Amino acid sequence: MISFANDYLEGAHPQILQALVDTNFVQEPGYGYDSFSQKAEAAIQRTLGTTDAQITFLQGGTQTNQIVIDSLLKDYEGVIAPDIGHISVHEAGAIEACGHKIITLPSHDAKLDPVDIKQFIEDFKNDMNMEHMVFPGMVYITYPTEYGTLYSKQELTDLYEVCQQYQLPLFIDGARLGYGLMSPEADLTIQDLVNLCDVFYIGGTKVGALCGEAVVFTHNNMPAHFKTIVKRHGALLAKGRLTGIQFLELFKDDLYFKISKHADQLALKLRDTLKEKGYRFYYDSPTNQQFVILDNRQLDELAKQVDFARWEKYDDQHSVARFVINWATTSENVDYLIDLL
Amino acid sequence: MISFANDYLEGAHPQILQALVDTNFVQEPGYGYDSFSQKAEAAIQRTLGTTDAQITFLQGGTQTNQIVIDSLLKDYEGVIAPDIGHISVHEAGAIEACGHKIITLPSHDAKLDPVDIKQFIEDFKNDMNMEHMVFPGMVYITYPTEYGTLYSKQELTDLYEVCQQYQLPLFIDGARLGYGLMSPEADLTIQDLVNLCDVFYIGGTKVGALCGEAVVFTHNNMPAHFKTIVKRHGALLAKGRLTGIQFLELFKDDLYFKISKHADQLALKLRDTLKEKGYRFYYDSPTNQQFVILDNRQLDELAKQVDFARWEKYDDQHSVARFVINWATTSENVDYLIDLL
Amino acid sequence: MISFANDYLEGAHPQILQALVDTNFVQEPGYGYDSFSQKAEAAIQRTLGTTDAQITFLQGGTQTNQIVIDSLLKDYEGVIAPDIGHISVHEAGAIEACGHKIITLPSHDAKLDPVDIKQFIEDFKNDMNMEHMVFPGMVYITYPTEYGTLYSKQELTDLYEVCQQYQLPLFIDGARLGYGLMSPEADLTIQDLVNLCDVFYIGGTKVGALCGEAVVFTHNNMPAHFKTIVKRHGALLAKGRLTGIQFLELFKDDLYFKISKHADQLALKLRDTLKEKGYRFYYDSPTNQQFVILDNRQLDELAKQVDFARWEKYDDQHSVARFVINWATTSENVDYLIDLL
Amino acid sequence: MISFANDYLEGAHPQILQALVDTNFVQEPGYGYDSFSQKAEAAIQRTLGTTDAQITFLQGGTQTNQIVIDSLLKDYEGVIAPDIGHISVHEAGAIEACGHKIITLPSHDAKLDPVDIKQFIEDFKNDMNMEHMVFPGMVYITYPTEYGTLYSKQELTDLYEVCQQYQLPLFIDGARLGYGLMSPEADLTIQDLVNLCDVFYIGGTKVGALCGEAVVFTHNNMPAHFKTIVKRHGALLAKGRLTGIQFLELFKDDLYFKISKHADQLALKLRDTLKEKGYRFYYDSPTNQQFVILDNRQLDELAKQVDFARWEKYDDQHSVARFVINWATTSENVDYLIDLL
Repeated sequence: MISFANDYLEGAHPQILQALVDTNFVQEPGYGYDSFSQKAEAAIQRTLGTTDAQITFLQGGTQTNQIVIDSLLKDYEGVIAPDIGHISVHEAGAIEACGHKIITLPSHDAKLDPVDIKQFIEDFKNDMNMEHMVFPGMVYITYPTEYGTLYSKQELTDLYEVCQQYQLPLFIDGARLGYGLMSPEADLTIQDLVNLCDVFYIGGTKVGALCGEAVVFTHNNMPAHFKTIVKRHGALLAKGRLTGIQFLELFKDDLYFKISKHADQLALKLRDTLKEKGYRFYYDSPTNQQFVILDNRQLDELAKQVDFARWEKYDDQHSVARFVINWATTSENVDYLIDLL
Repeated sequence: MISFANDYLEGAHPQILQALVDTNFVQEPGYGYDSFSQKAEAAIQRTLGTTDAQITFLQGGTQTNQIVIDSLLKDYEGVIAPDIGHISVHEAGAIEACGHKIITLPSHDAKLDPVDIKQFIEDFKNDMNMEHMVFPGMVYITYPTEYGTLYSKQELTDLYEVCQQYQLPLFIDGARLGYGLMSPEADLTIQDLVNLCDVFYIGGTKVGALCGEAVVFTHNNMPAHFKTIVKRHGALLAKGRLTGIQFLELFKDDLYFKISKHADQLALKLRDTLKEKGYRFYYDSPTNQQFVILDNRQLDELAKQVDFARWEKYDDQHSVARFVINWATTSENVDYLIDLL
Repeated sequence: MISFANDYLEGAHPQILQALVDTNFVQEPGYGYDSFSQKAEAAIQRTLGTTDAQITFLQGGTQTNQIVIDSLLKDYEGVIAPDIGHISVHEAGAIEACGHKIITLPSHDAKLDPVDIKQFIEDFKNDMNMEHMVFPGMVYITYPTEYGTLYSKQELTDLYEVCQQYQLPLFIDGARLGYGLMSPEADLTIQDLVNLCDVFYIGGTKVGALCGEAVVFTHNNMPAHFKTIVKRHGALLAKGRLTGIQFLELFKDDLYFKISKHADQLALKLRDTLKEKGYRFYYDSPTNQQFVILDNRQLDELAKQVDFARWEKYDDQHSVARFVINWATTSENVDYLIDLL
Repeated sequence: MISFANDYLEGAHPQILQALVDTNFVQEPGYGYDSFSQKAEAAIQRTLGTTDAQITFLQGGTQTNQIVIDSLLKDYEGVIAPDIGHISVHEAGAIEACGHKIITLPSHDAKLDPVDIKQFIEDFKNDMNMEHMVFPGMVYITYPTEYGTLYSKQELTDLYEVCQQYQLPLFIDGARLGYGLMSPEADLTIQDLVNLCDVFYIGGTKVGALCGEAVVFTHNNMPAHFKTIVKRHGALLAKGRLTGIQFLELFKDDLYFKISKHADQLALKLRDTLKEKGYRFYYDSPTNQQFVILDNRQLDELAKQVDFARWEKYDDQHSVARFVINWATTSENVDYLIDLL
């Protein structure tokens, strides 16, 4: 059965597999010192337009969030995140496992509002019990959000301004970064991110790689001994070439962006067609995830013909279905889905 | 320059890459529920001769040690390990990061002696300060050891008997398991391990895989909610197919054992030739790592022609060189090395 | 200036100090094996009517919450607590420091509603992402609550029923237990608690002791090696006699309950008089904490004459003042406060 | 039966109890902001001769070691300690519980040798696997040592020089500090410590207090937000007056030093008499703990008449008995013990 269940249904972009085959017997040092990882770092720096960006390759999203957050916080600090944030809900307590509280603030259109952050910090600073509380130590957001929505350049600028005002590093979880940046409704570029946050990651697992996320500390601000920190978390791959080769390919000739754009185009075709047909959407997502409100009976029927996620209950008669389009999704499959709806 | 520096110099066995290519566009569920991982588990169970063995695929050795140990210990317990054990020395505190002390005992020929364990436990139980001490909660060894030596079947039987007597789960780190089992001097089979420990892992990273270790709980004793434990450690791969496909290939037609045997044969050819030439060895290893004592000047000369690890100082005039042969090492390269020595 | 700022303004009940003096040169074993601690345990068991209750004496509230919760949860579990719960807000991340998430549910009259717990658990069990989430492992409440309100016997019975249905141990933080139980509006006895939760603590610090909280595991369910767990948390007092002697005195001739009753009577006198005068209350507390809504100017004036806590903003013109009456508060001081209002 | 089993057999110095009684109904702020704690800090600063020393009062030794060490180390760092150090052996894994490895070095006369530290650090820095190892982040010693021996001023100066050379903060566990400083064989003063380490603690529990240790950061180097760090560890006493009052008394008219000197004098009387009688000592301790090698039969006989600790086996026929003299030990009791030997 054709599936739109998530972003990690297939393997990797064929160009990546070919590169793995082509380089297979080249002997390389381990632990990220291989030439591929170094070339991949250089390629990403070129894309970003700065050699001040420091890149580390990790294997998965939860691992990346855990390591970056743990490396930036002091023991007594917590991370501010939207209540629906991935780290708050779907990472099995990986952040708390490192001793840190997630301080949740309400989300608006799945996004954090800088006004809420400012208010929270001011309240904290004026709280007579401040010394008995977890100190806010950084801010975590996702781009695009868990519901596919996007911060505008202005919104992110405002958010980062508040973060800087209170000396809170801003970390952007970019598990689906490509699908965000390539949306026709995005007004941000990957180069902008260098100036609008302290660290972000370029998601590979959901955008064409077998595995791998590229952490980018934007201005020579990578914590000292970061490799040892990664090792202590059990995340230092012996064959660093595995992630290095993949990101080297993804950043050749804009492959990462091209395959993201492909997915967005199909996703928006789906969205626009369903809108015309009168379907309602749970969130208005301009990216590769579409959250459609379906009558429960229609949903059950559909589930017999195609695979997708029953995301959550909407009301007694309706549920939210999530359809995910990714780099590997074909135009034919999207048409098939459209015909079913 | 040809390198014998470690076991992770090359990519993966070509059969694995071919399988990645062949299956690339098959849509599969994530997080280890893919059909490849399930077939790989079944293949390993067939090899082990029991469906009571429960298999989980992880990505690397430190990660595996951290998760298995943390999942078995209560908070107030520590893990007994040889003083030269990988977890004691070269994992950047990954075990302590989970709150657990490593209780080191002296190693003999790089191995733990059950008599030492017994003595330690008896002393602990009789210590009037017992309640103020870390409780021993499990035993960790490596097979083969960090210096390439092997426990005999009798030695492992004796060790496990002591472990069982004191209800200490025994965990065998098998990062180089194949190279141990396929040594002509090994009298243990992988089937024996099922009865001689509570959990072990089949190392993939050093034996033909791009990444991946297969954790085997031997008798339906996998801790409850192990997948959540793995997730909390940031180690649950979205595309579980990556490790599943690799182990499925490794356990087709004994590939894992064949490529291990190949390496051992070359390693023993190196060892035997050097012995004949009068070289001394730091440890008498019958497996793929050879620790040779070299005069410092000879070592410096050699380092200009071939890559290897300067393992440690032996005395003022000599050092220990480590040469590692792996699944990908060619007979020609070993001959080249022999000619240099 | 006379203070009603909190429950820990004075030293200890004079009877406790006298007992410290009287026993001072008796030589006793350390770490809780002293005869006083053992007699105190027996005295509490007599009060509770069961020798199945296992008592451990600790020093403070946050420490007690941290140790009890950490001892009951598996690594991948979190604790359900009301959003305004002390562990959620005012313990500086002490629970997360042990690797555990606090799963907050909304509070109603500062209390947890069993219906919310049931709903949460059912949603969790039906969540397709369950394996990626923190498992609920226990429930934490306070009695009386942070705002002085009380669970009725029926409410607590219902709550515990849900906890038992889902095998979630129920822990009651009794930092102000005496003030709760002795309220004329309480319909619970300390004996009832034995059957209505798995573990609770009898707060000493806020009820007549210099320091000390008595943890009660109600039915021989104290975790194995609890003393070692306490030690590992840095909380095992060498001179356990310090807490032992205090609780021995507090449980002689119902001293604990008498001094609590004294405070409640004065608090309710304050409450009733202020109600008659037309004051509004933020919560309707029948215990030793009174939360009064005051006009900001009146509050500023009052603050010049008496000490109390400005608890929180109510609206632009009003704030919540907290007045705390404790075992040492005199009738004269309460009258003085009443006259000022 | 008269006991010499440890240093915490009795309550507190009577002057302390009197002060608790005298101040009992003075209302004071909590959490260390009480006037007694502030006066006690000032008194200790006067004794130390500097207001750059920052004092925090905690409750017990393991707690203090845990908090100080955790506050100074980065996550990936460990603490260097002698193999027989209290934190290495008798604190139930309290340091590892915070995620930190204890890096043990051999002890000589129960002390760390700076040469060993230097060698360890140099080896670490030259280790090709450095990035895979726990980084040494500080040094922990005890004064006097667990076996009652003393660092000379020269020894401590040399040790601190090495620590400073490698930017490793030096922490001195002074659980029995008074008994060390007041030994006639000590050539160190408490004022010297200010210049010879970064942080130390003045043990109260074993030197006249009911509970309490005074942490001294020697040169305005207390970690930021240390009170919150203490709270997060569950160690912030609501009634900080309890420890404040005790240290205020201990540092009035040199009480702390006078009662320490009393104990040392009796201990040396015991030592010298036993030496004359031909007894052998396990360590040559000039402080309040005496480790005497006894024939097992004599030891068993003695144990019927007086209480002491059977410290460890010496050989098949002999054991080490530990006799502890403290501030409360009477001359008569020591004479009684001498007569028995």
